[in-house]
Amino acid sequence: MQQYKAPLSDIQFVLEHWLQAPEVWRAIPAYQDVDPELARQVVEQAGRFCSDVLAPLNASGDRQGCRLIDGQVHTPDGFAAAYQAYVQGGWPGLACDPAWGGQGLPQVLDAALQEMLYASNHAWAMYTGIAHGAYLCLNAHAPDWLKARYLPAVVSGEVLPTMCLTEPQAGSDIGLLRCAAQPEADGGYSITGSKLFISGGEHDLTANILHLVLVRLPGAPAGSRGLSLMLVPKWLEQGERNGVQCDSIEHKLGIKGSATCALHFDQARGWLVGEVHGGLAAMFVMMNSARLHVGLQGLGHAEAAWQYAREYALERRQMRAPKRPDQVPSSTADPIHLHPAMRRVLLELRVRSQGMRAIGYWVAHWLDLAAEAVQPPQRERARQLAQLLTPIVKASFTEQGFSLASKALQVFGGYGYTQEFAIEQTLRDSRIAMIYEGSNEIQANDLLLRKVLGDGGEAFALLLEEMREEAAAGLGAAGCGVYADRLAGVCDSLQRVVDDVFGLSALDPEYPYRAAGDFLQLCASGLLAFAWARAARCVMGLAVDDPLRVEKLESAGFFFDYLLPALDYHVAAVRAAEAQLPFLRE
Amino acid sequence: MQQYKAPLSDIQFVLEHWLQAPEVWRAIPAYQDVDPELARQVVEQAGRFCSDVLAPLNASGDRQGCRLIDGQVHTPDGFAAAYQAYVQGGWPGLACDPAWGGQGLPQVLDAALQEMLYASNHAWAMYTGIAHGAYLCLNAHAPDWLKARYLPAVVSGEVLPTMCLTEPQAGSDIGLLRCAAQPEADGGYSITGSKLFISGGEHDLTANILHLVLVRLPGAPAGSRGLSLMLVPKWLEQGERNGVQCDSIEHKLGIKGSATCALHFDQARGWLVGEVHGGLAAMFVMMNSARLHVGLQGLGHAEAAWQYAREYALERRQMRAPKRPDQVPSSTADPIHLHPAMRRVLLELRVRSQGMRAIGYWVAHWLDLAAEAVQPPQRERARQLAQLLTPIVKASFTEQGFSLASKALQVFGGYGYTQEFAIEQTLRDSRIAMIYEGSNEIQANDLLLRKVLGDGGEAFALLLEEMREEAAAGLGAAGCGVYADRLAGVCDSLQRVVDDVFGLSALDPEYPYRAAGDFLQLCASGLLAFAWARAARCVMGLAVDDPLRVEKLESAGFFFDYLLPALDYHVAAVRAAEAQLPFLRE
Repeated sequence: MQQYKAPLSDIQFVLEHWLQAPEVWRAIPAYQDVDPELARQVVEQAGRFCSDVLAPLNASGDRQGCRLIDGQVHTPDGFAAAYQAYVQGGWPGLACDPAWGGQGLPQVLDAALQEMLYASNHAWAMYTGIAHGAYLCLNAHAPDWLKARYLPAVVSGEVLPTMCLTEPQAGSDIGLLRCAAQPEADGGYSITGSKLFISGGEHDLTANILHLVLVRLPGAPAGSRGLSLMLVPKWLEQGERNGVQCDSIEHKLGIKGSATCALHFDQARGWLVGEVHGGLAAMFVMMNSARLHVGLQGLGHAEAAWQYAREYALERRQMRAPKRPDQVPSSTADPIHLHPAMRRVLLELRVRSQGMRAIGYWVAHWLDLAAEAVQPPQRERARQLAQLLTPIVKASFTEQGFSLASKALQVFGGYGYTQEFAIEQTLRDSRIAMIYEGSNEIQANDLLLRKVLGDGGEAFALLLEEMREEAAAGLGAAGCGVYADRLAGVCDSLQRVVDDVFGLSALDPEYPYRAAGDFLQLCASGLLAFAWARAARCVMGLAVDDPLRVEKLESAGFFFDYLLPALDYHVAAVRAAEAQLPFLRE
Repeated sequence: MQQYKAPLSDIQFVLEHWLQAPEVWRAIPAYQDVDPELARQVVEQAGRFCSDVLAPLNASGDRQGCRLIDGQVHTPDGFAAAYQAYVQGGWPGLACDPAWGGQGLPQVLDAALQEMLYASNHAWAMYTGIAHGAYLCLNAHAPDWLKARYLPAVVSGEVLPTMCLTEPQAGSDIGLLRCAAQPEADGGYSITGSKLFISGGEHDLTANILHLVLVRLPGAPAGSRGLSLMLVPKWLEQGERNGVQCDSIEHKLGIKGSATCALHFDQARGWLVGEVHGGLAAMFVMMNSARLHVGLQGLGHAEAAWQYAREYALERRQMRAPKRPDQVPSSTADPIHLHPAMRRVLLELRVRSQGMRAIGYWVAHWLDLAAEAVQPPQRERARQLAQLLTPIVKASFTEQGFSLASKALQVFGGYGYTQEFAIEQTLRDSRIAMIYEGSNEIQANDLLLRKVLGDGGEAFALLLEEMREEAAAGLGAAGCGVYADRLAGVCDSLQRVVDDVFGLSALDPEYPYRAAGDFLQLCASGLLAFAWARAARCVMGLAVDDPLRVEKLESAGFFFDYLLPALDYHVAAVRAAEAQLPFLRE
């Protein structure tokens, strides 16, 4: 079975060259101790954990799946031991405040960790996936006594949190939630109701589990403005079992080693996090972190798919290729990576994975600046950019993760359709990320309706400013002007489209809903152009025959020649949504 | 569990309105008895068999899968009984020569049957899938005594044939096949070697199985010109077991009820079909029929995905839609089909499925004319068109079948990812069709290198002639001129691209290999434009408020507004392949 290997050198390229993160960290008090050597060690150790501990459990966890016996979930063999190693390595607290026992490292290093966790074993990483978001949510919104009681255990990994939103009748529409909470005399609450699709709602990795549950208090307004957030532990302080049970686990297309639980709360004890009826605001802290993480799942699957396909294509021989590099001897059966159709898909896998990595880490980097930059305007700018970029990353990375898994599967021919190779699991596992944490359709509406139209285009203007700055820098550097020039053209297109969208939306309020999906794709395409224009500029300082420079320039060339033409299509598609959409008849 | 229902009314629309098949049949001696009423009954009965017998076994067959016990394959419960019903219904011989016991009906009716078989139960239909191709191959190439011995049993369904090409080292490249045959004194052959990925290589639906096996005779030239085709029955005439065994069955992503076998031939007795070293030509008769069938699998999955998603979207309620039809009361939770993002995907599902149906049946109709038209030039023209269109249908329908299954799954949100709904199986089952019977990359090369460049563009000119004729007819009819006009523009684009491709290929022999995939997509997009321009013209004679007319015009409008913009992208992508593609380094 093929196994994922941590892509350490490209991660270093993004951190050190593309982001120039160490320079930025030097200017930030919170990160002044994070020198490049420390960052490199953290990434290497994270990579070793993912390659050596998690990757070997990926296929076996999928085969075995989870079992629910007498209300107790049994995770696949090895999952619990791997979690112990994860805790002992200090990984849960990587980007948490040292005041709570964390290591206080930048979130961009956590992004690298998350990418590798998901790439090596998506199902396993589901258990830890919400922990950082829950930490942020509790840190920002829980009362001090609740923080003191639970935050150290979240940061150390002694407990694992969950996010309990969905109910059978309420998926994308959390305004329909019914789960109820009654206040009690001691300031606590009694919670009763059912929750569905709760990842890690029950498991055997930790003794205690902390459920963060959206509920409705008596007299709460209808809809999403009437929700409150409760912390509901599986075990109460005095070793008493709380009233929350796992009724069933889902049988799913993929991530079979992750227990997706239907939970039943029956007069469970809980405590308010955030304001009464302010559950949505408190939950959104968690959701935004979770959405970036889900985007990184797409990146992780794309990287894994690229590795698997590359390895197979270098070995498998079929037919004579129409052309081969000079040093390769002629053969009646060439390695299939020489065939143009395979070369195209392999280059696309490489170029999209590496481009997504730069953009995904860029968002995490903005989150770091939003939290820790010295000047408030710097923080505000970073916050706006991170907010704008999050739905693009969530939706477009997950869509690419799945479609690239399918393209990689094609490289294997019939073998790819069998369980002998890892790629069929990648295809299945990657598909969920397009759905959960807000479906990709919800992300598209969030982007266009709220983040672009909703703020009068202010955040979008900041993004274009960043992109135009890159274009200007590239035009000023020798050798990469051709890409910078294309990027400038991309910025002009994006500007025109956004102007059009404002105009059309004013005339027809349904228009942005029809255009949202294509608008998001357009932005994603523009961001990859930005990623590759900058990557090309970054390697200009290297020797002409440096392999990194050669490969990055080939990749940039491939992107602008072969992948950028899709951008004009997305422009046309956003425009095409001007046409009315008929309704279905029943 | 949702279940597929035979889409009888759209099948009738394609046969009677879009193709006007009954009129064509009247002019063909072989089909003069096929009146519209008979055709309608055949389709209805086929639909009933698929909806009532096969669809209920789809999910259970997937769960149970096949088991191999002591060399014997056990198919899922109910599969063998369903096959008996299939045989009793006379379905195996639907489009076979009455001289061998067939019903002599047009292949276009068989195409309708095949679409429904695959849509209702792809795994089951794999057992019967190759039978018609094998019939055509044996009928064209087997010696008379072999025909007399085996053809009646193939036509009645008493035996099921297989197609044995692939070996572990030889997938797309059949030139690498090693399986060997030695001539024997009595005119037969002794066959030894291994074959991989043989669908229905062993099963319990029929007592005997007829393997059609590509082998290499002593002294045969290397490569694909040295192959011969052998017929190798599982059981010999005197009740003696032949030397062919099933070593293992594959564990696969989907079509789990279909036994995909590794077969081992050990001095098995066989007989030559076709010429010595002429196996490829004989096999190609079977492959071309099989490739159209595989295209119909993509259509079947798209239709099933559309049905499932539509049904769910009519029932599921989430959030207030930004707009709703006048007669629908306002609600805080509207049926999700009213939401623009869902309306878009549902319309795309409907418009692509129905458009593919028209094009797929059109190819089958050309096959009928190629075989039975009165005038030889008519037959030759039909043959050229069918040959040209087959790779487009195979690759583009299967790609759409899979991508539409994924789009439909998205409509279900988290539920779509669970095994409670049929759509996750559709996603898994549909994926194989992009790989087998010549991967979609092989189809693209076949189309551009062989079928377009290889014949100097002659067949492609015939296709453009057909499309321009439709545009002219539409421009002459009241009410559908806008679509006809767009179709005329599509024809101009296609003509320009083909001219360019000839020029570029002459300068750079690798160019067509780089452009082939996008060229195929471009043709597929053009064919859907043709399908919808004609569909719009076909309903112009109906009353203005006839529901069929209203729906078809809405669909055509959606196609030209929302889906046609992709055509310009494919044009740009074919052009973009001018750029050189770098080679990977190891």
